[in-house]
Formats: sequence, C-alpha cells, structure tokens
Amino acid sequence: MSTRTEIAALGEFGLIRHLTEKIVLKNESTVKGVGDDAAVLDYDGRQILVTTDLLLEGIHFDLTYAPLKHIGYKAAIANFSDIYAMNGKPRQITVSIGISKRFCVEDIEEIYSGLQIACDNYKVDMIGGDTSASLTGLTLSITCIGEVEKGKAVYRSGAKDTDLICVSGDLGAAYMGLQLLEREKSVFAGEKDFSPDFGGKEYLLERQLRPEARRDIIEMLADTGIMPTSMIDISDGLSSELLHICRDSNVGCRIHEDRIPIDFQTAAMAEQFNMNLVTAALNGGDDYELLFTVSLAAYEKIFAMKGVHLIGHITDAPAGSYLVGRDGGEVKLTAQGWS
Amino acid sequence: MSTRTEIAALGEFGLIRHLTEKIVLKNESTVKGVGDDAAVLDYDGRQILVTTDLLLEGIHFDLTYAPLKHIGYKAAIANFSDIYAMNGKPRQITVSIGISKRFCVEDIEEIYSGLQIACDNYKVDMIGGDTSASLTGLTLSITCIGEVEKGKAVYRSGAKDTDLICVSGDLGAAYMGLQLLEREKSVFAGEKDFSPDFGGKEYLLERQLRPEARRDIIEMLADTGIMPTSMIDISDGLSSELLHICRDSNVGCRIHEDRIPIDFQTAAMAEQFNMNLVTAALNGGDDYELLFTVSLAAYEKIFAMKGVHLIGHITDAPAGSYLVGRDGGEVKLTAQGWS
Repeated sequence: MSTRTEIAALGEFGLIRHLTEKIVLKNESTVKGVGDDAAVLDYDGRQILVTTDLLLEGIHFDLTYAPLKHIGYKAAIANFSDIYAMNGKPRQITVSIGISKRFCVEDIEEIYSGLQIACDNYKVDMIGGDTSASLTGLTLSITCIGEVEKGKAVYRSGAKDTDLICVSGDLGAAYMGLQLLEREKSVFAGEKDFSPDFGGKEYLLERQLRPEARRDIIEMLADTGIMPTSMIDISDGLSSELLHICRDSNVGCRIHEDRIPIDFQTAAMAEQFNMNLVTAALNGGDDYELLFTVSLAAYEKIFAMKGVHLIGHITDAPAGSYLVGRDGGEVKLTAQGWS
Repeated sequence: MSTRTEIAALGEFGLIRHLTEKIVLKNESTVKGVGDDAAVLDYDGRQILVTTDLLLEGIHFDLTYAPLKHIGYKAAIANFSDIYAMNGKPRQITVSIGISKRFCVEDIEEIYSGLQIACDNYKVDMIGGDTSASLTGLTLSITCIGEVEKGKAVYRSGAKDTDLICVSGDLGAAYMGLQLLEREKSVFAGEKDFSPDFGGKEYLLERQLRPEARRDIIEMLADTGIMPTSMIDISDGLSSELLHICRDSNVGCRIHEDRIPIDFQTAAMAEQFNMNLVTAALNGGDDYELLFTVSLAAYEKIFAMKGVHLIGHITDAPAGSYLVGRDGGEVKLTAQGWS
C-alpha cells in the first residue's frame, strides 16, 4: 500500500524543505545551493547568483486586471529582488513562456516588452529561454543570474542576538492594491469596458502591478560601508520572511507594531475595507522590500539612511519571535504560504 | 485598432526569433545570449553555460504512460544535453514545479527522485527552484548551468563548406517509442490495470521514457583532440537541427539517406506501423543525440570513433540543404516545430 501525504499537511515551506533537505552538493563551484534567495556559484572569479521563479495564471496573476506588460515587468523584478537580497547585482535572465491558443503574438510581445523594460532599467541581459504551447493558461518561468564580490554574499543565516532589524520602504501597499483590484473586478463582473475610479489610490495599484526592486538600498549600504549580517526580500510578507531569518540564524526577534512602515494610502484603504492594517503589513505579499539585520554598531548610519526603518531587534532563540503591540502585549509571529 | 498575428503564422522558431532579435547585450559578462543551446557567461574565470526548459503536462509528457520519476529524469537529461551540445559540462540545475491538487507529496518526490538520479549520474547539483500551486496540470521548469574552458564553447554558427556532418547514436527510436505508447494507450483506453506486451521493444521505450545525454561523446572528442566546428543536440529532429546549423553558419548541406543511423527495432516498428522510416528518423524528436560538424582533416579520427556516424557534408549556402536518397535523388530538408 502506498502512502499519501497531502501537500497541505506540509505547507509550501515544509514541502520545499522536505524535498531538498537530502541534497548533497558535489561540485567545488557550488558555494550555496537550495535554501536562500539565490544559489551562489564560484567559477574562479567573482561569485555567481542564480534564482528562479515560476508564475502561473490564476495563481500569481489575474489577466482580468493585470496587463501582460506589467506581468512581464513584475516577473523580472521579483527575480532581481532575490539577487539584491543576496547583496548581489542581477546580470542575466532566462525566460520560459507557456502559451495557449488564447494568446497571439502581440500578447507575447507585451510580456517580453515588460521584461525588456525591467532589464533595461536594471541593466540586465535576457540570455535565453524556452517558448512552448500550453493546453491551459499562461505560464512564465524566469531564472536570474547575478554576481557578488567574493565574501560579500549576505545569507539568511547570519543574524546575531542584539542585531537591529531593518526594513526598506513601506509594507502592505501591494496587498491593499490587490484587494482593491479584486473588489473592482467583482463589482464590475460581466460589464464591458468598465473603468473604475482609482483616483487617490494610484500608489497601491503601482505597488501591486508595477513594483520595483531595491537596488538603491544595496548601493546605499555599500556606499556607507554597512554589511548586513542577514538579508531577505519580502515577497511573502514580513512575518514569514523574518521567521526564515530567525530559523536559519537560530535566533528570536522582537519587532514593534508602531515601527512597521505603512503608507497613508495603505492605512486609508484598510480602514475603508474594515481590515486589520497590521495583519496586511505583516502578511501581505508582493512588497519586494528588503528585510535585513545589522550589528548594533551600525545604528547611527542606519538611522540616518533614507528609506530604511528600524523595526526591532534580534534576540536569542529561546526568547522566541514576537510582535510587540502598541499596548506592550506580545503576539507570536506566524508564517503563511500556499498549501 | 490592434493587430492580431496568430502564433501559427510565425511558427515556434519564427516566434522566438521575432521576440529576441532586438535584444542588445549590455554586460561584458554576457558572451553569448539567446540563439544557441545555452548562453555563455564570463565571470573572469571559466565560462558559464545556462540553458532552460519548460515542460507542460499534455504537451511534453502524458501521465497516462510516463512515470513521474522518468519525467524528472528526462527533464534533467534534456538540459544536460544542451550543455554538452555547447561542448560544456553541466554543473548545477534549478527546478521549478507547478502542481495541482491532483498531486500528493509522494508524486512530487517521484519527480525529484528522477531529477536526483540524473543529477547523481551526471555529477550535477540541484541548487534551487520554486514550487507553486497550479490550477491546471503539472508544470516543470528546469534551468541548467554548466562550464566550459574559455574558447572551447562550440556554437551552431561555425560550420564551413566541406566540413563533415556527424551524428551520435541512432535516430527515430524515441519517436517510435512514443508511437508505441500512444497506440497502447488508445487500444486499452478505459481498461484498468492494462499491461501491454512491450517484449522486444524495450529499446524504443527506453529511448522515449529514459533517454541519456551524450557526455561520452564530448569526452571522446576531447580525448581525441577534435574540436567540432559546430554542434547542436537533436531534440526536435535531425532535419530541424541541421537547418539551424546551416542557417546560423550560412552554409548548405548534403546528408545521405543510407547513412542515417537507425536501430533495427526502430525499423521493425516503422514497418509494423506502415510509417516512413526516414521521416521518423529525420523529424522524430526526443533523441538527445549530438549533431556536429568537423573539418575534413578530422576524417580518420572521426571514422574510428565508436558511436559516431558520418552522414554527409557541409556545402556553400547557394547549394541549399538536401537529403540525398538511395536512388541519388535530392529532397529539400524542412523543419518542424510546434505552432
């Protein structure tokens, strides 16, 4: 009798760990394999970073409101963000697309044009890929290769007790943008040529449909001479990513609710939707901001850095991982993935 | 008014060319981008090869008869084959899988185990990937990274007039294996626990379900000191691949029908199915053999090489690309892709 474990029983991260934990690396050139934002390779000279993302219609994007060009742009950005999160620079991408008969050449051109604009903006070369017929929806698979100076790659595993926890930009806006789009979609379901009024909410839509990767933060850190002790990009939500760092670094953390950076449009939207703002900021995906830790000694430099927010500090592992509320109460951080 | 060009109007290769012809490379580290079996990167030391493949259920594999483990194995092999076709050695792969609720953990383990066996056999590290929910069928995306000594990468564009055309192994068997599986599938449609008799046809099934990449040929060429002038792996069929070489090298060719290597099981099966054997050998996919050209001076060494067959020679471009039949008549070579 064969056993059957439902994927839901492991969850996304559990499944990935389960599948990859027995892998033994064989080549000297493989410095770091599965388990971080990108793999690190070493071919004599500089170190090479490789990351990959699979995007499926209906799961990662909805063609009802996401223009194909934006889907391409965002797919590239998500990969660049992974490379920056290793303290590296994206250099090349490969692109594989699966397309059903529903799509025409111009549609694929739109996707490519979005990818190309992103590549131009971030000085990345598209170096290959695969295009295939698909029986079902649109499938997009991107692999990005980047470089980093030897010894300069920043992993998820380097956070130490008393380190400061920093986050770039603001959180939850992309998630609120998604809620807004979903609402308009259901309100106008069936109507042709609907043009909902998104006035005053442009920032939320831009964060959802056309995000950017934080190259500027990586450059600022380098210019200031700060080497983060750990780093990850926020694609699944602050809570989930911080727990990755804590587990891989074998530490705990305290972050403060009132320090989590949130844009006023995000707050207004949460109010309007009667949603919990902190939940959106903690668990909302697609932010592509950087979450990193620095040693206490870097406090002054970080404090002075534009666009970077101190949200808490690292503790030892037994102290656990908690959000400290405005009232001083502590709530255990939990992660969410797909199942 | 927006224009709409059907993808069929361009065909697979036309579409890829159309999408990639305007790409301008920006980084010194990008030696070769789109347009060959793998991209070549240069990060100071050795050169790096990157190739990627997207496999979709119902298009590239049929779960009715292809075991998941074999799908994983074959997916890895297809990528390794691309790296060998550049005269390189595969070193790392990333794996992205999209899975619907139909699949359980053990299913994904099967795919991974097939990938892992291939990686073990060819000394390749799995270095990352992505796993995602899918609303539809199984999606598998593999990116392979390899290395090659500087100046030793072999492109599709180096074939010269009078060069010899060589092919490894034999052709058409994987295609015949597919025909056999498709026939049994339709014969036994609806019946449970059917066990068709594949006696005497094991080679055809193995070629379709569990192919190998020709590392041995690459090693032999290196040992013998032969540097091919051009090379490509045969995944879409001899005819299509040879036309790639001719176009990229701006040459023509003559290959001889009676020189095309065909296994006796392939021939027997074609007879039984009343199919044209040469068509199957010219256009059947999934062979993963190597097609390469060498200068005339290498004739004796190539002639003595086990598992390598001389099938014709390169001409100048105006002479065109033709198959010379047993009767001496010439038939123009044509390519097939999906549309």
